[in-house]
Amino acid sequence: MATNAAVKAVLLLSGGMDSAITGAAARARGRRLVSLSLHYGQRHARELKAARWQARALGVERHIELKLPLGPIASGALVDGGAIRQSGVKAGKPATYVSFRNGVFLAAAASLAESVGAGEVWGGWCFTDQAGYPDCTPGFFRAFERAVRAGTWAGREGRAFKIVAPLGRLGKAASVRLGLRLGVDYRHTWTCYQPSSQGPCGRCDACRLRAQGFAEARLKDPLE
Amino acid sequence: MATNAAVKAVLLLSGGMDSAITGAAARARGRRLVSLSLHYGQRHARELKAARWQARALGVERHIELKLPLGPIASGALVDGGAIRQSGVKAGKPATYVSFRNGVFLAAAASLAESVGAGEVWGGWCFTDQAGYPDCTPGFFRAFERAVRAGTWAGREGRAFKIVAPLGRLGKAASVRLGLRLGVDYRHTWTCYQPSSQGPCGRCDACRLRAQGFAEARLKDPLE
Repeated sequence: MATNAAVKAVLLLSGGMDSAITGAAARARGRRLVSLSLHYGQRHARELKAARWQARALGVERHIELKLPLGPIASGALVDGGAIRQSGVKAGKPATYVSFRNGVFLAAAASLAESVGAGEVWGGWCFTDQAGYPDCTPGFFRAFERAVRAGTWAGREGRAFKIVAPLGRLGKAASVRLGLRLGVDYRHTWTCYQPSSQGPCGRCDACRLRAQGFAEARLKDPLE
Repeated sequence: MATNAAVKAVLLLSGGMDSAITGAAARARGRRLVSLSLHYGQRHARELKAARWQARALGVERHIELKLPLGPIASGALVDGGAIRQSGVKAGKPATYVSFRNGVFLAAAASLAESVGAGEVWGGWCFTDQAGYPDCTPGFFRAFERAVRAGTWAGREGRAFKIVAPLGRLGKAASVRLGLRLGVDYRHTWTCYQPSSQGPCGRCDACRLRAQGFAEARLKDPLE
């Protein structure tokens, strides 16, 4: 059967725009998907709901939600209740950096990949937006791939393990346009770090980057 | 103050003998310790209780328990309820192998290490016992260290990250003797994968290795 020959991949699905676009890109490349959403003590669950919606839209084989409550071990505003920076996107260590969080997520994704026989993990990382996150960089991904190949039976048996970041160098506007072309429904994506009951705050780094993406793509955000 | 100059380290403390001996070895080398016990859907909590006891005995600065319920993503008998092998220790992929579990644990430990300013993670890995676990091998550890240095702010700022396995090549009997010399109280360690209400089963791989260690060291196990 053709579907059995297709490459199987784990998709890290956060509920945000970028991972939804990434999922659509993986489907367009014929990947059979198992999606994984991780809770890590976030402030709200709207993005998990959005992730579930996107998983259904993508027709994944399985959607898995996993609790990784990193609060007791990691520092950083997203889990410890500190202030979210609202002063615009700057260089340096962001207040939203959680120590090696993406490293923990990728380790969980690598575990799932080996369990289900997948040789790839896809995620919506943007290398320019995430310059302040060392665990979201190509250099880290290559080093982590080598570690996973050394540290799994799949690797020992010669099977591949790759981290795929189709949006890595694309820029926000091009990502938004790609998603539209691939049929992503942005109404069912969630971005904001600290929403009110009325919706996204419009001021946190995540909101600013989202707004910038739509503005540069000359499109209107359906959530606005 | 002398204690502030001491190297800070994260200790992975399972409640078993090996991590207790490892903690004692780290203390003997003057390390200031933060200990981390991970739940991953184990069948019983006795080892977590033993870990708490050992943390107190080691005088750690902080003892942290973290839930990493890998059941939904990982395969393997320890979390999925499958049969534990009782046919003796053999080569090949053990029934107790959980996909990249130690990789997930080390990622969590690396996150904690960066949070608390520790440059080392100590653990009770035995390379001979754990030949069937690719994520408990020196080759994996070296690759993972490189990944952590590439993927953290601590690494970006040039700080070291090392995984230390003092029992790695020591053998079970030598480990048991080392622990005795360092004052480890083996009554407060737990090993068995499937205990009954009367105590350890005496038949699982973990029990066999423990018994072999005491026998070769010509000592009596206080739990027997």
